[in-house]
Amino acid sequence: MKAKQAVRTAVIGLGRIGKIHADNVMKYLDNAVLKAVADPFLDEAYAKGLGIEKAFKDPEAVFRDPEIDAVVVCTPTDTHVEMIRKAARAKKAVFCEKPVSHDPKVIDDVIAETRKAGVPVQIGFNRRFDPNFLAVRNKIADGTIGKPRLVRVTSYDPAPPPVDYIRHSGGMLFDMSIHDFDMVRYLSGDEVVTVYAKGANLVDPRIGEAGDIDTAAVILSFKSGAIGVIMNCREAAYGYDQRVEVLGSKGGIQAENVCPNTTVLSTADSVRTEKPLHFFLERYAAAYRLELGEFFQAVIEKKEPGVGLLDVKEAVLIAEAATESLKQGKPISL
Amino acid sequence: MKAKQAVRTAVIGLGRIGKIHADNVMKYLDNAVLKAVADPFLDEAYAKGLGIEKAFKDPEAVFRDPEIDAVVVCTPTDTHVEMIRKAARAKKAVFCEKPVSHDPKVIDDVIAETRKAGVPVQIGFNRRFDPNFLAVRNKIADGTIGKPRLVRVTSYDPAPPPVDYIRHSGGMLFDMSIHDFDMVRYLSGDEVVTVYAKGANLVDPRIGEAGDIDTAAVILSFKSGAIGVIMNCREAAYGYDQRVEVLGSKGGIQAENVCPNTTVLSTADSVRTEKPLHFFLERYAAAYRLELGEFFQAVIEKKEPGVGLLDVKEAVLIAEAATESLKQGKPISL
Amino acid sequence: MKAKQAVRTAVIGLGRIGKIHADNVMKYLDNAVLKAVADPFLDEAYAKGLGIEKAFKDPEAVFRDPEIDAVVVCTPTDTHVEMIRKAARAKKAVFCEKPVSHDPKVIDDVIAETRKAGVPVQIGFNRRFDPNFLAVRNKIADGTIGKPRLVRVTSYDPAPPPVDYIRHSGGMLFDMSIHDFDMVRYLSGDEVVTVYAKGANLVDPRIGEAGDIDTAAVILSFKSGAIGVIMNCREAAYGYDQRVEVLGSKGGIQAENVCPNTTVLSTADSVRTEKPLHFFLERYAAAYRLELGEFFQAVIEKKEPGVGLLDVKEAVLIAEAATESLKQGKPISL
Amino acid sequence: MKAKQAVRTAVIGLGRIGKIHADNVMKYLDNAVLKAVADPFLDEAYAKGLGIEKAFKDPEAVFRDPEIDAVVVCTPTDTHVEMIRKAARAKKAVFCEKPVSHDPKVIDDVIAETRKAGVPVQIGFNRRFDPNFLAVRNKIADGTIGKPRLVRVTSYDPAPPPVDYIRHSGGMLFDMSIHDFDMVRYLSGDEVVTVYAKGANLVDPRIGEAGDIDTAAVILSFKSGAIGVIMNCREAAYGYDQRVEVLGSKGGIQAENVCPNTTVLSTADSVRTEKPLHFFLERYAAAYRLELGEFFQAVIEKKEPGVGLLDVKEAVLIAEAATESLKQGKPISL
Repeated sequence: MKAKQAVRTAVIGLGRIGKIHADNVMKYLDNAVLKAVADPFLDEAYAKGLGIEKAFKDPEAVFRDPEIDAVVVCTPTDTHVEMIRKAARAKKAVFCEKPVSHDPKVIDDVIAETRKAGVPVQIGFNRRFDPNFLAVRNKIADGTIGKPRLVRVTSYDPAPPPVDYIRHSGGMLFDMSIHDFDMVRYLSGDEVVTVYAKGANLVDPRIGEAGDIDTAAVILSFKSGAIGVIMNCREAAYGYDQRVEVLGSKGGIQAENVCPNTTVLSTADSVRTEKPLHFFLERYAAAYRLELGEFFQAVIEKKEPGVGLLDVKEAVLIAEAATESLKQGKPISL
Repeated sequence: MKAKQAVRTAVIGLGRIGKIHADNVMKYLDNAVLKAVADPFLDEAYAKGLGIEKAFKDPEAVFRDPEIDAVVVCTPTDTHVEMIRKAARAKKAVFCEKPVSHDPKVIDDVIAETRKAGVPVQIGFNRRFDPNFLAVRNKIADGTIGKPRLVRVTSYDPAPPPVDYIRHSGGMLFDMSIHDFDMVRYLSGDEVVTVYAKGANLVDPRIGEAGDIDTAAVILSFKSGAIGVIMNCREAAYGYDQRVEVLGSKGGIQAENVCPNTTVLSTADSVRTEKPLHFFLERYAAAYRLELGEFFQAVIEKKEPGVGLLDVKEAVLIAEAATESLKQGKPISL
Repeated sequence: MKAKQAVRTAVIGLGRIGKIHADNVMKYLDNAVLKAVADPFLDEAYAKGLGIEKAFKDPEAVFRDPEIDAVVVCTPTDTHVEMIRKAARAKKAVFCEKPVSHDPKVIDDVIAETRKAGVPVQIGFNRRFDPNFLAVRNKIADGTIGKPRLVRVTSYDPAPPPVDYIRHSGGMLFDMSIHDFDMVRYLSGDEVVTVYAKGANLVDPRIGEAGDIDTAAVILSFKSGAIGVIMNCREAAYGYDQRVEVLGSKGGIQAENVCPNTTVLSTADSVRTEKPLHFFLERYAAAYRLELGEFFQAVIEKKEPGVGLLDVKEAVLIAEAATESLKQGKPISL
Repeated sequence: MKAKQAVRTAVIGLGRIGKIHADNVMKYLDNAVLKAVADPFLDEAYAKGLGIEKAFKDPEAVFRDPEIDAVVVCTPTDTHVEMIRKAARAKKAVFCEKPVSHDPKVIDDVIAETRKAGVPVQIGFNRRFDPNFLAVRNKIADGTIGKPRLVRVTSYDPAPPPVDYIRHSGGMLFDMSIHDFDMVRYLSGDEVVTVYAKGANLVDPRIGEAGDIDTAAVILSFKSGAIGVIMNCREAAYGYDQRVEVLGSKGGIQAENVCPNTTVLSTADSVRTEKPLHFFLERYAAAYRLELGEFFQAVIEKKEPGVGLLDVKEAVLIAEAATESLKQGKPISL
């Protein structure tokens, strides 16, 4: 049941992730209603068939609409800044997919503008809301494992994206590792001071020809002295590998992969369990729901969302330093 | 998005399980729409607040309503038969919670009536739709583990129900084990021929005073010669324990408990994983959704539902035999 | 290093299990020395090559030898009683493989004789000394899981023995399940009062033709009211399956299979762990060592061994009742 | 039983590890006999009490003894080189504990000398013989997971050694990580070309005052382009954490910790498994046995041992580069 104060929402950009957010607002979230969608390629009839009241081709229509309280920005990355600015001017709360911009100064400007406008902004670092990583974070935050010493994130994709995508992705460190840069900050509750990234092109030579890497390990040092490790690969034959692990002064905690079921099959050949959930849509289905729910709750309670532009700025700064580290072959200070 | 041919549905009886089914139709299922709810204690305003078109106190209103294609019966057990009969006369498809009746002859009559009326009936043996048990069933059905030899179901509740409930429950074998009687039939794909039940009163003496047991082990033999084992307890300190395991001629398969997350916490004290999901609402959330979805699909495709009155009759026959075995202290043939 | 008071020992019967015990005394145990071996088919030169001081064909030589304090009886089952009697007369401590005799009265006589002779007797219920089952037993004995309610033993062999062996084995319940009858007593710390056994011939029809079963489930009730379940099969495609599980009033404990290593292999096909250790020699290697070590310690400290003739008598009584249950098709009281 | 061609062996240095090797030769290995031990602090009577034929205070006695074929060097690190040289001159095969020397040039000289003398030398990189890591190595070597892309070693000690020990240890990278430097070479079958080490002093400030670190992460790049990651800490509250993991082009493989038993204890508080085996003596008990067995086999078959001075030289070169990386704060090429 939708709550009385449910946030009137528009989703802008109805690609894969936009559809997920729209679906979550419609079906699962009690604290928001989907008033409108906007996408230049939108089949308006189709959208209305879904029971969505308003369906626009032009996002401007959303910003002009006085019945919209909040926008969920799922447009291409190079339009994020523009969308947030327009939302700020229109005094609409913003949920925006990462990475907003690869330029930390631009993010600074956006921070200034949205603050001035008094508009709350949440960034789509969905993995923070994964129930497994959340449980890890909680056991660190409540002191169960003491002070973090070593934080590790393992993140492998099941298969690389098309080389064309890679060419415009900003590089693996900006496109893929950025989630992990946010994750180490989130888990440790600490800030990164230096980064060393080592990359390799081992999955597909065309990725190397496009100027990118497909395999990487990154060491980060934190203010507290703790050390972070990120392991990334664009391809793992067995699927989407998403694990984290933290060693603290009083113990350690790890989150293992999530599987479609708990069966164990034993035959003359082997003892087999299920492979991990295939990719991010399956693995992070709950996280997508939870992050939006928390955003709308922050809007209703007029609170600052827990993950915002400052977080994406930090992640971008780390990605920038990591990219520079890759280029120079040495650690870079932030 | 609701499909065009979505089944127009009414939920009758809005207790705990009725609300779950209503919620699933509203939020998760594309092949049904919730047209009406009926409950003598219904707050009609509240129901309409949920966006439900029609809210009745009297179930008769549902049966009279030409806009209703199917009913989901969640009323008290002693009204199941009456509800199914009324639905049959009104030519409405029926999804009915188990156990319909404790009298197999009555179930036979209901089978005859609903068949004559041409009305499809599905029974709420939700555990068949649990993704874990479903995966076990599939590996048996596709021959991966060969012919079943030993089938085990472990089913412990986190805590016993109130003694008042137990007094009217028909006994643990009818109230709790009946799910497991269905499960061994489902997993083995085989029919039970003899049952031996051993019970004990170890959890709470008031359960014994009420004439019931709270701990049981049951051995069943199947037509094929395979042997089934059921282990039940009304209380497990660590929560809801729901596991199955089958040994076949080519291997074995088991389904382990489902936990809220995959964390492993290691401290000086211990290495800890999460306890199982607390109780049936959490553990079988997906199963409740999947069983209803399959029911509506059967209605749309005018097919016989996969689990019906014959299945509940078999489970009741086994429960009856098990109860008799308990009384006589010896195995009973079906 | 051998302790000063090391028990001077002879192993009688150098078959597979006799060689294991001899090897354990020679290599691993500090509280015993292997003074002699005796076997009618013994290659004396070979035995001396191993560094064993005395090698006899005739066991009588052992009983006559004043330098022998204890004998380890690994001869065929039908000679167990005779060997124990001779040892008792010769005032030598006895470690004897199970099952001594299938006749509880004969065991009673042996108990009387050995008691009178003041000779300690330990029976080779090696599984009690498995570090996994021992840990389960300890958590029950120290009250961690409260009072036992349900005790389950799963014991499947990797492959059936030759039919000729089966013909002279006394039946699966005496040959295989007897270990599990002892295990449920050991884990529960309780005595069995009734037994119901259900058997089937599913592995190999020649086993059925030989008058035996190859698959069984057994329900046992204990004095305390707790219930035991044993699941047995002569064949499991994936190997030697040896697990136990106990539900108590404060929690549950289980011991999983033991594997040769802890690797997890993830490929496009599956996520695989190792199969269990192949068979009893591998699985119970530590247990064989520990049981003998405890026996010699009891001899040194002049204590009653922890597992003795009364235990084998109880196991035989249960096997007898189970066999009768199988024959009569109903539960049997002890 | 000792084989006819059993290698006549002397253990030099009877500290903790020397005693383990002596014990393994005496009890477990068929292809060697313990002829002598030598230790300046030796209680000769005690040694003879163990059944060791010859017990010397002066190692020279060993080198002079024509009845000794091989020596196992367990003396303090600063005597390793001298011992190997003396053994080479005396034409005795050498098993020497790591790290021989921290100076790769010295190791080169030792290599030259022992080669000239035709004396086989094996180095005590015991972890290569751990059945878990061995199984990982085999699945890589046989192509099961394809070409390695990322190799990770996690190695945490249960508690730091005394600060006095640390002061003379050569630093954590030489003392602790050197095992892991060897492990990444072993698992990958590849050579390291650059190293970046990041260290921190988080466990005990006195370790920092002694000029050492207690927590480290290391990134290594291999000739093939693959990347290695090592995570080290002098303290883990839950015990000795020894895991490895490799991602290859066709899959991944990991080896988990080894626990004393397989029990799972479920109570109202938690679901608990055992902590890992406490420390290296327990965890690597089998590995110590297997490495010596392989050494003696190489001696008998006049083969080059599988892990030798070149391996220790490589590990030392990596440790040297890692130490330099720590000092300079940048990656170092080998």
